[in-house]
Amino acid sequence: MASTPRTLAGSAAVSDGPSLFDTTLRDGAQQEGLRFSVEDKLKLARLLDGLGLGYIEGGWPGANPNDTAFFQRARTELDLEHSQLVAFGSTRRAEARVEEDSLVAALHDSGAPVICVVGKADSRHVEKALRTTLDENLAMVRDTVSHLVGLGHQVMVDCEHYFDGYQFDPEYSLSVVRAAAEAGASIAVLCDTNGGMVPSMISRIVADTAEIGLPLGIHCHNDTGCAVANSLAAMEAGAVQIQGTMNGYGERTGNADLVTLIGNLETKYDLRVLPAGQLANLSGVAHAIGEIANQLPQARQPYAGRSSFAHKAGLHASAIRIDPDLYQHIDPAVVGNDMRMLVSGMSGRANILLKASELGFGALTRDQAGELVELVKAREVDGYSYEAADGSFELLLREHLGLATTAFEVLFWQASSHQTGQGEVITTAVVSIHPTGQGSGATTVEATGNGPVHALDQALRGALIDYFPQIAACHLTDYRVRILDDGHGTDATVRVLIDTEIDQRITATVGVGTDIIEASWEALSDAYRHALVCGGATAPVSLR
Amino acid sequence: MASTPRTLAGSAAVSDGPSLFDTTLRDGAQQEGLRFSVEDKLKLARLLDGLGLGYIEGGWPGANPNDTAFFQRARTELDLEHSQLVAFGSTRRAEARVEEDSLVAALHDSGAPVICVVGKADSRHVEKALRTTLDENLAMVRDTVSHLVGLGHQVMVDCEHYFDGYQFDPEYSLSVVRAAAEAGASIAVLCDTNGGMVPSMISRIVADTAEIGLPLGIHCHNDTGCAVANSLAAMEAGAVQIQGTMNGYGERTGNADLVTLIGNLETKYDLRVLPAGQLANLSGVAHAIGEIANQLPQARQPYAGRSSFAHKAGLHASAIRIDPDLYQHIDPAVVGNDMRMLVSGMSGRANILLKASELGFGALTRDQAGELVELVKAREVDGYSYEAADGSFELLLREHLGLATTAFEVLFWQASSHQTGQGEVITTAVVSIHPTGQGSGATTVEATGNGPVHALDQALRGALIDYFPQIAACHLTDYRVRILDDGHGTDATVRVLIDTEIDQRITATVGVGTDIIEASWEALSDAYRHALVCGGATAPVSLR
Repeated sequence: MASTPRTLAGSAAVSDGPSLFDTTLRDGAQQEGLRFSVEDKLKLARLLDGLGLGYIEGGWPGANPNDTAFFQRARTELDLEHSQLVAFGSTRRAEARVEEDSLVAALHDSGAPVICVVGKADSRHVEKALRTTLDENLAMVRDTVSHLVGLGHQVMVDCEHYFDGYQFDPEYSLSVVRAAAEAGASIAVLCDTNGGMVPSMISRIVADTAEIGLPLGIHCHNDTGCAVANSLAAMEAGAVQIQGTMNGYGERTGNADLVTLIGNLETKYDLRVLPAGQLANLSGVAHAIGEIANQLPQARQPYAGRSSFAHKAGLHASAIRIDPDLYQHIDPAVVGNDMRMLVSGMSGRANILLKASELGFGALTRDQAGELVELVKAREVDGYSYEAADGSFELLLREHLGLATTAFEVLFWQASSHQTGQGEVITTAVVSIHPTGQGSGATTVEATGNGPVHALDQALRGALIDYFPQIAACHLTDYRVRILDDGHGTDATVRVLIDTEIDQRITATVGVGTDIIEASWEALSDAYRHALVCGGATAPVSLR
Repeated sequence: MASTPRTLAGSAAVSDGPSLFDTTLRDGAQQEGLRFSVEDKLKLARLLDGLGLGYIEGGWPGANPNDTAFFQRARTELDLEHSQLVAFGSTRRAEARVEEDSLVAALHDSGAPVICVVGKADSRHVEKALRTTLDENLAMVRDTVSHLVGLGHQVMVDCEHYFDGYQFDPEYSLSVVRAAAEAGASIAVLCDTNGGMVPSMISRIVADTAEIGLPLGIHCHNDTGCAVANSLAAMEAGAVQIQGTMNGYGERTGNADLVTLIGNLETKYDLRVLPAGQLANLSGVAHAIGEIANQLPQARQPYAGRSSFAHKAGLHASAIRIDPDLYQHIDPAVVGNDMRMLVSGMSGRANILLKASELGFGALTRDQAGELVELVKAREVDGYSYEAADGSFELLLREHLGLATTAFEVLFWQASSHQTGQGEVITTAVVSIHPTGQGSGATTVEATGNGPVHALDQALRGALIDYFPQIAACHLTDYRVRILDDGHGTDATVRVLIDTEIDQRITATVGVGTDIIEASWEALSDAYRHALVCGGATAPVSLR
């Protein structure tokens, strides 16, 4: 199959694209600072399956205890609808029998239907790193593949360093693909392991290799900034499978970003690579995976990035008012993203009106919306962000409309940590509140906690619970801290986001300050304010 | 000129590459959250000239007061050695005389030797956005170019929306290039303004357009993740100038990253695009520009990123010990970057041995390395991470070898925040230390700060400074907090990373705990421990 982008292909026919092979759980986890627990991997696999990717490579069972545990739990806990689970492993050891290789046995024992075996495809690596003969390496590929095929697996072969190897000694690299084909591999995946290729190199080598007749896959790293383009070049030259990672996670410069590839394949090549309806979930799934990976979102990521359809005024803004297609390569809604006008009061007002109506304030006027646009802009300058803090936005909206925003006043709070002579750290907090409209009495509660924010939470709950028993159903489920100024050491401005769950509905509140405790306190007390004032308000509120 | 990457060209001859045109100051400044002052632009221009780029586009004089001021100051304050300064502007207004167009006059008045005029090259934009006739648009291009050429300028024409326009109505787009050629433009720059192209589209259209005979340039945006590859495809199809921005700054997903392009052109195509000796400054200049732009560095940026030559996998590390070229596409020193071994639970003995030798402990034995692997794994289970905390790893290594790890003992610390009746938040800290081997006396210092960590930092510095005046040169430059357990509310485990700078060398330390203050204290006190114990130790330390 040679695919070309639609506008050049001269045909508008929609056809099936290459199969997508996700290796976020294995190769993506090689990224600096990235670590997945078994629980994380199970969550990721469910998201990837939901999006509808063909293959999910789960890790290297046998070599890594975490990965062995993942495959074990996957057997009973993962019920995949679209994806097939793949176990990754190496060819058998040199000069050994495949039947006696415990790592090869672990691949079969993992229970994964598909196995991806990595074999060396660069003669220099065979001799220098593997320290065996060129013939023995071929035998290792053949033996491992035919053994696993004999056990009933679909077996793919990752040809490591294929392109570097081909440039140095094409005959040897080709012979590895031939060995895989002869032993019954379903596909040979050509890997640009060191990531040094550019598209014209890839095209030529894939086309040459395709002559063997075995279906080919492509696995690229981004060291030349061309991982996506290299994958597309391989596909245009005949590759039928693309390996990559979500958000391009991976060692060094990362792997080919499947998010970008999916966007390109679906919208530029008119190829169907996801089940019907899933393309609109692309941005959402990319962000959810970023949350699990605990990685900062990439604002400029193609298709899914927060800035990717953001326009900064000037020439563009006026043209977009005439026709959004004039300055956008696709309609962002197609991939679940939004156009954002960065300085347009018009689009700001429209957003506020939509959000208000979502919160039950459908009667908000255009003027009120305009005032709120200005208010939000001013608060953003101070470091607030309401995109991920709908609870705080609702309080801001109520305040602007003159509605009640709190059921209690805070008279005093204090948090204190100290290390004892024995090295133990003790944290205590004191909170004093006064319920609105309950005379002049104050309730003061002291509590200890695992940290100052936890202690403050315990003390505030303790002070509120007698007056407001309904807060027993209210749980803080997430606490995130983001440093806003880079390079300012410990006196940086911080933004704290707190998620609160009541009746399976999650609301987020935000606090900002140079003092992390002060910012946390703002987000924390707003969480309880919101729960008490807006808690049950799903019905529209009438505006005076 | 059709260029191909070296390994496929079959020739090792070094030749001159395309000219590089930097538009960081103009198009780069369109990025969300990015703003350059006139002072910033002058600094950037000096850096770009030092690196040796051919053209620096400074902005749009006449349309933007900031840009007008930049060109004014540039005349007297910029003494460029390698680069030519370019003023950007638009073609004359429709149905008007070019001699009477004040914006065109401002281009000439800017004093820039080179002028880049943007003209519409998509018939739909001419009719919908410009609202004039197709013929009038061609006349606007012709008149503006010949007028400015007549005034003695070199004139380039940016053909806006060229590729989208060509796909819709190739004849019209070609006629814009012909108009530019006839009027005396030196080059037509084909722009993928909306960024929706992939390389195979670019190749075909550039090759078709090259038949006109006017030299061509290329200007790409990264909306398909292919801006670098698209620029290379255009060059391979005959373009002789590449426009881009440093670090890929730009609107939406950004522009083609010149840093990556320079790396590719010099090391993959063997083309000289920088003056001799400048390639080794590439990473440094990229980072300096990031500082001026006040943008977080992109760890995964090809060539210049901090992670771009960082290795985590055990397999890779053992091969790298044999020959670094086995797992690197180039020697990082060529572009002014460094190889880094990441120490993590996934790394093996080889990583630890390489890292230890990087830190001056070249005599570490394989057994000691094996013990450290286990130690790091165990600490990672508790939430520590040494990948980004080389300072803490060095302390761990010293402790394991029985070497001194501290110059002071902590007797007591305390941090406390409280809100006053007036709503003000006050944070104080008390730290009591005892310098190792200084009898039994203790120094206790109390300090206030912007938050508990800042207050602790101030108190600890205050307590140490009399004994260790060298810490005056030690500055905390970054403070990052990561919540480790997701969904655990305010009692989650947190990891704190602190960067400390001494003599332009940055070291990171890590602390972990359920108490954010406790974790911060660990990272903070380890930062000072490391500075005092390891500060000057760049020479190998002998091991007993």
